[in-house]
Amino acid sequence: MSSRDDKQNAEEGILTGRRGFLGKSAALGLAGVSMGLVACKDNGANAAKPAAGAAPAAKGGGAHSIEVPPGQLDEYYSFISAGHAGEARIIGMPSGRTLKRIPVFNTDCMVGWGITNESRAILGTKADGSLKYTTGDTHHVHGSYKDGTYDGRWLFINDKLHGRLARIRMDIMECDKITDIPNIQGFHGLFPDKRDPVDEKINYTTRVFCGAEFHIPFGNDGKDVNDPTKWGTLFTCVNAETMEVKWQCRVDGNMDLVATTYDGKFAASNQYNTENGYDLAGMMSAERDACAFFHIERIEKAVKEGKFTTIGTSKVPVVDGRAASNPDPKSALVCYVPVAKNPHGVNASPDGKYFVCSGKLSPTATVIQLDLVAKWFNGELKEPRDAVVAEPEVGLGPLHTAFDGRGNAYTSLFLDSQCVKWNVDAAIAQYKGDKNVKVVLEKMDVHYQPGHIYSSMGETKEADGKLLNSGNKFSKDRFLPVGPLHVETEQLIDISGDKLRLLADHTAYSEPHDGIIVRRDIVKTVQVQNMDDFPNAVKPETAGITRQGNKVHVRLMSQAPSYSMPEIKVKKGDEVTITLTNHDKVEDLTHGCAIPTYNINFIVNPQATKSVTFKADHAGVFWMYCTHFCHALHLEMRSRFIVEA
Amino acid sequence: MSSRDDKQNAEEGILTGRRGFLGKSAALGLAGVSMGLVACKDNGANAAKPAAGAAPAAKGGGAHSIEVPPGQLDEYYSFISAGHAGEARIIGMPSGRTLKRIPVFNTDCMVGWGITNESRAILGTKADGSLKYTTGDTHHVHGSYKDGTYDGRWLFINDKLHGRLARIRMDIMECDKITDIPNIQGFHGLFPDKRDPVDEKINYTTRVFCGAEFHIPFGNDGKDVNDPTKWGTLFTCVNAETMEVKWQCRVDGNMDLVATTYDGKFAASNQYNTENGYDLAGMMSAERDACAFFHIERIEKAVKEGKFTTIGTSKVPVVDGRAASNPDPKSALVCYVPVAKNPHGVNASPDGKYFVCSGKLSPTATVIQLDLVAKWFNGELKEPRDAVVAEPEVGLGPLHTAFDGRGNAYTSLFLDSQCVKWNVDAAIAQYKGDKNVKVVLEKMDVHYQPGHIYSSMGETKEADGKLLNSGNKFSKDRFLPVGPLHVETEQLIDISGDKLRLLADHTAYSEPHDGIIVRRDIVKTVQVQNMDDFPNAVKPETAGITRQGNKVHVRLMSQAPSYSMPEIKVKKGDEVTITLTNHDKVEDLTHGCAIPTYNINFIVNPQATKSVTFKADHAGVFWMYCTHFCHALHLEMRSRFIVEA
Repeated sequence: MSSRDDKQNAEEGILTGRRGFLGKSAALGLAGVSMGLVACKDNGANAAKPAAGAAPAAKGGGAHSIEVPPGQLDEYYSFISAGHAGEARIIGMPSGRTLKRIPVFNTDCMVGWGITNESRAILGTKADGSLKYTTGDTHHVHGSYKDGTYDGRWLFINDKLHGRLARIRMDIMECDKITDIPNIQGFHGLFPDKRDPVDEKINYTTRVFCGAEFHIPFGNDGKDVNDPTKWGTLFTCVNAETMEVKWQCRVDGNMDLVATTYDGKFAASNQYNTENGYDLAGMMSAERDACAFFHIERIEKAVKEGKFTTIGTSKVPVVDGRAASNPDPKSALVCYVPVAKNPHGVNASPDGKYFVCSGKLSPTATVIQLDLVAKWFNGELKEPRDAVVAEPEVGLGPLHTAFDGRGNAYTSLFLDSQCVKWNVDAAIAQYKGDKNVKVVLEKMDVHYQPGHIYSSMGETKEADGKLLNSGNKFSKDRFLPVGPLHVETEQLIDISGDKLRLLADHTAYSEPHDGIIVRRDIVKTVQVQNMDDFPNAVKPETAGITRQGNKVHVRLMSQAPSYSMPEIKVKKGDEVTITLTNHDKVEDLTHGCAIPTYNINFIVNPQATKSVTFKADHAGVFWMYCTHFCHALHLEMRSRFIVEA
Repeated sequence: MSSRDDKQNAEEGILTGRRGFLGKSAALGLAGVSMGLVACKDNGANAAKPAAGAAPAAKGGGAHSIEVPPGQLDEYYSFISAGHAGEARIIGMPSGRTLKRIPVFNTDCMVGWGITNESRAILGTKADGSLKYTTGDTHHVHGSYKDGTYDGRWLFINDKLHGRLARIRMDIMECDKITDIPNIQGFHGLFPDKRDPVDEKINYTTRVFCGAEFHIPFGNDGKDVNDPTKWGTLFTCVNAETMEVKWQCRVDGNMDLVATTYDGKFAASNQYNTENGYDLAGMMSAERDACAFFHIERIEKAVKEGKFTTIGTSKVPVVDGRAASNPDPKSALVCYVPVAKNPHGVNASPDGKYFVCSGKLSPTATVIQLDLVAKWFNGELKEPRDAVVAEPEVGLGPLHTAFDGRGNAYTSLFLDSQCVKWNVDAAIAQYKGDKNVKVVLEKMDVHYQPGHIYSSMGETKEADGKLLNSGNKFSKDRFLPVGPLHVETEQLIDISGDKLRLLADHTAYSEPHDGIIVRRDIVKTVQVQNMDDFPNAVKPETAGITRQGNKVHVRLMSQAPSYSMPEIKVKKGDEVTITLTNHDKVEDLTHGCAIPTYNINFIVNPQATKSVTFKADHAGVFWMYCTHFCHALHLEMRSRFIVEA
């Protein structure tokens, strides 16, 4: 067993450059595999590099400090996806403080997500009453748009594991809707549209686009399981308001991230495995993959004209967007722009002109000019590849790209463990032949193996070029050791000046994926809800116990420090519903409700109502108590839930 | 609906003293109830107070900054309980960064807690295979001791909701054992012993003591549900090594916190509701409650001599510690020392001399001298109350007390929203009659309504008097608003100087309860486990699929970026067990394993082994994929799990 202590930490990292440690592991874990990685420079050599990011800053950090003193507020909200933790998170920036966990696809016994009837209705249940799923894998979170920037209305977040799209109400920061997307597996990227593709007057989000990674047999009911040539993937459009699936479009290859244009016309998804391979070698055989552009207006016209099929029991219209079925650009539903091998990201520049894909297995980023894609759809561009206007060499393992609104791009380099700053116009000039132009402006070490990278307001036309977050997949020696499972590193970088400055190593419980950084003035929350927004609110005139056969309804109120009934009596075998309305009106005065043995645990915010239903199958006395500290007499806030034998 | 925005925040708090806001809510939510609170000074008057803690510090904070620059490590670990979130957390101090969530009584789909067979065995399952409980309420976490300080071996944490004690292995920071405590409800306080009460050679933790709050009928099977006079509570002793329940002791009143003496002789629990009341008024009728001291040696002798009963089907020996059954101090099992009304805490001073209880409904703390308690047990002290050597007036709503090792105590004042620093020796002198001594040294505003308060190493003889954490139950306007549910405030205070200094407002997802702050050199973790510690480890010679009837065992290995089998084929209706061993040896190289539709989601750390068992009840192709970013080809790390119809 290898064990770490302070002395080792000191020897290995703190007092010396830390890249030596990375070098060792990179050699073992990354360069060491012989599975078709492109030429990989000697990671071990990094050991000798000056450890730019690790150089201890002056205590406090001066003008670049991320410290938000007590009593002051953060400047930005960051909304992040949490990978296989299944939740969304709200982080204050620059402090890095976690302001909220929003349970979405996971369960959460603090708020009662998966316990209350209301959350169970959103999550979905099986015939036996158990939750359909208790796990999820959230990769991307994006906000709804108006006029090219966030409108603070909704967040959308995906579940890659079970193919679901969830919506979060930003006024209360709770999930209000989860949609199962049919006919797909491995739902990875999502992006809301920024305005309507057809109606120019609609300048806000009405659709959410969803890319799927995994090829599966259509219907996936046991047929064709041994014939991968019959498998396929679909691009999905969901109505942002109703959260119903509008249509799906079959494509070649696996889809990864999704981006949308500022004019609303196109959605795009970068694709690896355009080979349609079903094993590792097959997924990497082609030298180039693609970025697929979807012509939304044409797809919706085709649906309207009935040019679609359906799959199995699903009623969702499915159009055929495969290249072979769309030979004529002037009627094509999809344009496949060839990009560098196995790309892992597509991001829109804030000026609305370009989409940038990253090579992952190629050391390049690919810049696609959007008006040239439009030209191809009009039959005015010879080849989709002609829409590529730059392909700068940025470093090893490029994954995602962020923007500063000043013409610069920031790409995460997974293999190099760096963030590279490069200039988009310079890259275009270089591609045209200018050999003197400086494309790559700076490279900064990050710690270690970055995935997503995102900048303040960077996915809007209001990109402000202040903060950049590098979500790193390995933290190794950056924090006090806590055993085999490491926390990940979210590194905050100041991009406001000429030089990049590493501000902070924040931590993230695995696994930080994508995020957005939103100016605080955009977010308007409700702090105390309206009791009348809850149709089942319990008021003094309705409070009490009613019984119909063996169904007992307990209508309860809370006001610190007591529940409205000191004793609730039911009989063994009863089906009990407790509806609890919190009558406290004070901001932050939330009450909890827990019942021992019955696995009941949930909270109710001021003026809100929640309910639970369960079978009273154990006789005895069970003290229902308040779990959410509410009052000096909080401990005494309890009622006797008595189940008579 | 009341909604908050930046402008309002500015108007209400940031630019002015924030206590006005508190004053308003305190008036509504606390002072406003008329339920027997002792005289409460005008909270509204606080609005005019200078907002000491809220005064914005200089950006960066100078020498008192909590900012840990990138590349440097925190000085302390803080291990905290997370209330009704059901987990434990590891926080780096002073940065406040969350280094780990440790799922305990909750479920966690990131690591697979509640999903893997190994975690399900620890959590316990019902006859139908579902988890016994998925909720919990963790209030206190304490470390195991050796020679009066932490030995870094174990953490113990309670579940108040379902009466369970859990143990966390500090080498890997995972829960390895959960014990159901029989015959009790509302298991609140816990504390390990610091050395053996009988064998002086044993200088480390061998027992954990557990206090229970709620009176219930013994057996709790439906009998006596309407006769509260027959209900009772038990104090429980658990074997720290085997985690088996050793004995229980019946007491009067409800128990709250637990503390143990440095000599190992006594455990104590503060008690509210010594009246044995079963409603709010009844719980507050007496002017004094008690701190109950348990004479461990005598109790264990009584058990050995067979002087015990058992309850229902439980085989745990139960001795009778009620006052009426123990009239002679010289043979008494329990000593009830009267303390201020409805106390909410008992804490041991690092010099081993005193226990301090707080009044909650009395503005006083009660100092009990331990050698006087020992004298009472020897028949040398007239009344238990004579063990009280001080009862200083500290402020309104005193809850918990921490120590700095320099003779000072720090008590949280819930109603006053303050931390009060007072001197123990001065309080004793004052109690003896010295009218000139200064007991209360300083009061600092905290934001808002503090619960637990704990200092660095403060519950050991190595209390170092550097940091103090105030776990506040309300945050109100201290952070960017995130809707009706607020994050809580953990305020870090520098106690090393003459004056208290507020260093930071950290955040905590509800609900922060108690914690300990441990020097980093004490914690020694294992970063890569030994494969041979897992009896079911899959090695090349055992990898593959075996079948017995409809039971299929898939023995799988992972090594970035692939699983050992690209395809796993089973038949619909099979009971499938997947055992996965992670063969990567690199620190931090964890792999995930998720299977769509099957609700499977778990991780395996380097060299570790985990397993899941489920019924293959859906035919089709399900891509099993790696969820924990492992490699540039992480996205391509997937295998086809095929269920044939």
